Amino acid sequence: MSTDFRSELLTSGLLVDTGVAGLYLRSGKFERVVRGIDDLVSSTGADQDASVLHVPAVLPRALLERTGYVRSFPDLLGSVSVFVGDDDLHVQLLELLGKEQSWVELLSPSDVALCSAACHPVYSLCSGRLSEGGHRFEVFGHCFRHEPSLDPLRMQAFRMHEFVYVGDPDGAVAHRDLWLERAVDLLSEIGLAVEVAVANDPFFGRAGRLLAVSQRSDTLKCEIVCNIHPDAEPTAIASANYHLDHFGMAFGIESANGDAAHTACVGFGVERVALALLKTHGLEPDKWPARVRSCLWP
Amino acid sequence: MSTDFRSELLTSGLLVDTGVAGLYLRSGKFERVVRGIDDLVSSTGADQDASVLHVPAVLPRALLERTGYVRSFPDLLGSVSVFVGDDDLHVQLLELLGKEQSWVELLSPSDVALCSAACHPVYSLCSGRLSEGGHRFEVFGHCFRHEPSLDPLRMQAFRMHEFVYVGDPDGAVAHRDLWLERAVDLLSEIGLAVEVAVANDPFFGRAGRLLAVSQRSDTLKCEIVCNIHPDAEPTAIASANYHLDHFGMAFGIESANGDAAHTACVGFGVERVALALLKTHGLEPDKWPARVRSCLWP
Repeated sequence: MSTDFRSELLTSGLLVDTGVAGLYLRSGKFERVVRGIDDLVSSTGADQDASVLHVPAVLPRALLERTGYVRSFPDLLGSVSVFVGDDDLHVQLLELLGKEQSWVELLSPSDVALCSAACHPVYSLCSGRLSEGGHRFEVFGHCFRHEPSLDPLRMQAFRMHEFVYVGDPDGAVAHRDLWLERAVDLLSEIGLAVEVAVANDPFFGRAGRLLAVSQRSDTLKCEIVCNIHPDAEPTAIASANYHLDHFGMAFGIESANGDAAHTACVGFGVERVALALLKTHGLEPDKWPARVRSCLWP
Repeated sequence: MSTDFRSELLTSGLLVDTGVAGLYLRSGKFERVVRGIDDLVSSTGADQDASVLHVPAVLPRALLERTGYVRSFPDLLGSVSVFVGDDDLHVQLLELLGKEQSWVELLSPSDVALCSAACHPVYSLCSGRLSEGGHRFEVFGHCFRHEPSLDPLRMQAFRMHEFVYVGDPDGAVAHRDLWLERAVDLLSEIGLAVEVAVANDPFFGRAGRLLAVSQRSDTLKCEIVCNIHPDAEPTAIASANYHLDHFGMAFGIESANGDAAHTACVGFGVERVALALLKTHGLEPDKWPARVRSCLWP
């Protein structure tokens, strides 16, 4: 697997281990690459007349229900618990801490959860009738997926940079197709060897297997994969997704003619693109090929 | 209070309401201000030879215990629960969802929690003996505090930009004093009317009141406050803190002579500085005074 690459990243200080699998601090050098990627993606979408939204890591928990995330990906979500006690419960808490016993049982569920996908909060802003032509959003998000792994390409906390379309079916398909091409061009331009692959989301459980099959047979999800580990499966570093009317129905969004809106998004896994660059061009960004550097830091 | 200001921010689209008090999406215009502030703070500290670290919103839960946060600020923390069930528990989950009943009771505590203060993960990297002169860090962090409020200055999810010193007592006091002066200069330079005030952290409960009194009498915490609401208390937009050997003891950090390390940090509340700018100079950053714009976007 990628334990060698992980060791190189940690030894070089680009990433810093926190002691929990899949959670890293990022160095300034790593973040300079991230900023370069974000700026390149933004400039590639400068013609989209998109509303720009930056999404915090924490969102209303109700969103996880409305998007269908709890139903389809329960194993990946994170819900936030908080302490709502008084002085007496605080005394119990201090006693448990003193005996080094678990204190999390004293917590209560809050109304917030970790963001699972950058575009999710966008749909709830669109409830109601859209104007002709639909609407585009550029979304920067901090996401969480509970899948502890030592593979640095599989982080629990990571960023997604998306372009989202909300409107009619033709517009959604056109958005997906446009951005699939743009994403391949963009990633090729910075020297990454990428291919497009039909894919499915990791739906949970028995029922999930059927959803995955139908998502594939309708080619609703295309991943842009990069061969980061020569001896492993290629890794998805971006994806282009057509959701049909899933979010339109869930959030009561109507296209201009009154039908349920169709939506599509392209998402760049920012850390994964950064890691693909580091693996491809080496751990010292200042020594990357001039044409790659001029794309990222014009 | 600041409900008028909140309405202005939402109407202008600078912030977007998520439906949960204190949680907002940020517009591209707002984030341009944030980037300007971050870049200005970084350039102000360019002489510090600091290691730069970017901290994700999610960290090992054990950190909350080691820093003393659970003990002192239980009401502000957020711990993450996850679903670790099989197909059978998934069936239960789907049934609860179908009946619109609460499903969070099916979740289990994870080993991660939301980051409470940007500098906390830094101390665990320093365990052991420091070299002469100690060490400095520049830290960008995404923080969570469970204090739902309609005041836009009190967000549940927000960013902190810090400069941290880990070393001996003289170095810690010098760092705190240097940065208190620098922060006042920096914030004044961008047109904010600020003052320094002795302050205390919001320690929880009966025991906490004593800690607050002693923190004040030792002047360990100074806040830089700005009069954002003319009819309310001034708001802290940055703070400079001397922790004595609190973190040195908690994380087994020794200064060069073998004593427990002393630490200090300055922290800028990035969203609060952005909001103070918007309140002071108006909601249209392109129309801010030229000297303010040239500081933020040189």
